[in-house]
Amino acid sequence: MINENTNSINPTALLPADEAFGLVIKEVENAIAKAPRVVRQYTAHLLSSRGKYIRASSLITCGQNEEGLVHPNTVKLAAAVEVLHLATLVHDDVIDDADLRRGEMTLQKKYGKRTAVICGDYLLCTSLVLAASISEKEKYLNLTLPDYAGKICAGELEQHINNFNLDLSIYQYLKIISGKTAALFEASFYAGAVLAGYDRKECNRYRRLGFYVGMIFQLTDDLMDFESTKEISLKPVQSDYEQGVITLPLIHTLKNMVDFRQKAEKKDITRQEINTAVKHSGGLVFTKQIVDKYYKKAIKVINELSLDSVKKAKLTEVLNKASRLG
Amino acid sequence: MINENTNSINPTALLPADEAFGLVIKEVENAIAKAPRVVRQYTAHLLSSRGKYIRASSLITCGQNEEGLVHPNTVKLAAAVEVLHLATLVHDDVIDDADLRRGEMTLQKKYGKRTAVICGDYLLCTSLVLAASISEKEKYLNLTLPDYAGKICAGELEQHINNFNLDLSIYQYLKIISGKTAALFEASFYAGAVLAGYDRKECNRYRRLGFYVGMIFQLTDDLMDFESTKEISLKPVQSDYEQGVITLPLIHTLKNMVDFRQKAEKKDITRQEINTAVKHSGGLVFTKQIVDKYYKKAIKVINELSLDSVKKAKLTEVLNKASRLG
Repeated sequence: MINENTNSINPTALLPADEAFGLVIKEVENAIAKAPRVVRQYTAHLLSSRGKYIRASSLITCGQNEEGLVHPNTVKLAAAVEVLHLATLVHDDVIDDADLRRGEMTLQKKYGKRTAVICGDYLLCTSLVLAASISEKEKYLNLTLPDYAGKICAGELEQHINNFNLDLSIYQYLKIISGKTAALFEASFYAGAVLAGYDRKECNRYRRLGFYVGMIFQLTDDLMDFESTKEISLKPVQSDYEQGVITLPLIHTLKNMVDFRQKAEKKDITRQEINTAVKHSGGLVFTKQIVDKYYKKAIKVINELSLDSVKKAKLTEVLNKASRLG
Repeated sequence: MINENTNSINPTALLPADEAFGLVIKEVENAIAKAPRVVRQYTAHLLSSRGKYIRASSLITCGQNEEGLVHPNTVKLAAAVEVLHLATLVHDDVIDDADLRRGEMTLQKKYGKRTAVICGDYLLCTSLVLAASISEKEKYLNLTLPDYAGKICAGELEQHINNFNLDLSIYQYLKIISGKTAALFEASFYAGAVLAGYDRKECNRYRRLGFYVGMIFQLTDDLMDFESTKEISLKPVQSDYEQGVITLPLIHTLKNMVDFRQKAEKKDITRQEINTAVKHSGGLVFTKQIVDKYYKKAIKVINELSLDSVKKAKLTEVLNKASRLG
């Protein structure tokens, strides 16, 4: 239980936000470089294909003061959040042997599924070790990442249990993604606000903003699954539906197109047919309306926050990135 | 990040060790009862077949004072350690489709492997949330369970990478189990000592004792895999070797029986042949000698500790349980 994490950053001097962001990337790379070789192999393709670090950038944005400076602890926590996200990607990659189509399966074939599972576990632990490596921990005892990690798991579980459940309701779906995706955004926004030293009420506003941003991020992702081709989305060949994941545009379509629903029950349906049905039934428009509702709520919270214009612009930028507008 | 863990125990009044042990079992059951239904289903067969709670009982034993009383935080941490162990069992249960023989596979077949993976993740998070729910956290900032969880993962990974590696050395094997198994014993003994309020030097003695007890526990388990039948060991049908796990008795045999090694390379070998070879080559005797070395080291540490005779007897009992002597 001795913390071996050597902190090369001056633990008290505030940092410019841009510099902090660069250090997060280094911290994540460093954490992975120290991992066993097989973990590095597993994460290589995931690291190369993500890039955005939107959770880290949210945390840093929320954590900055009027001079655009952040506490060095934001680097550790932002890195922890990104490594946690990486852990969920690795575990999401553990797939049944029936789905041997994807290129990344070679490592799973080589080492077996258990290895993939434990790689993800290792990253989850690494994330929590990073979070525990912040300085002046006694000040931040209410920042408990495992709670949020647990919410992510509960959301993911609910999703897997409802695989191919054509009766999934809108409410159930929004609850699933509030855990699966929004929880980590909530945690990032909240952690940033706590590190910036805001009072409880203000911190809770940031948390709520994180929730809205997370919901928008996921719903926009869902839309992209129907809208874009493989080349554009850089997603694997399988669509959400092919993996059994029923998302909001499809839920709307299943409710409103009786003949489509009957075909779906028989699993007699191609990807092209799904995309067309979702488009024509108004599934995309409906989902965009929900995104819009969350977007308006997010803007309202941003306006409630005590912000200078620079930070306000930056938070709006994060919101627009989540909506794929930025 | 609000801790919803309601603490029914008076957070300051010391508890008799026996009572604390009963509360740990309740705390674990309670944590699982609050989990999503699918997690409860996955854990049901694991909970029914384990019973011993040796890690919890180690932690409580190490944590007790001269009057046999423990701090209420020992209950939380002991429960955290047991739930963490349970999480590792769930992930260990994620197996490749080639191994569909085991009864417990039905749930994995029903929900898919990812669900099993996330069940384990959920338990891992639950464990860390429990650990974070201790009172007066600011006193125990050096008690970081994720470090140990990370060591367990690194050990497990090393083991999986070396599946069917007939060249695995004794040194490599001992390193693997020092992570895979001994790390959690180390953590349990250390946490108990910290909660009992011992100084740094004494706490490190307890940690070392935990390491020896963990090594003995695993090596004795390895021996039992060759010695007992399914009925006695309550293990699944597959032996360690059938799962590709090369343990110490077999390492010794592979080194010393050239013809056996050649057969093993061709995978032309039955379980009965392995058991006979390991017995006749002295693989069991050799492993017992190693166990004996650790046992002697453990006794030496127990004698170095500042102990009353009651606690000494209890620690010896834990040691004997790990050696399956008690």
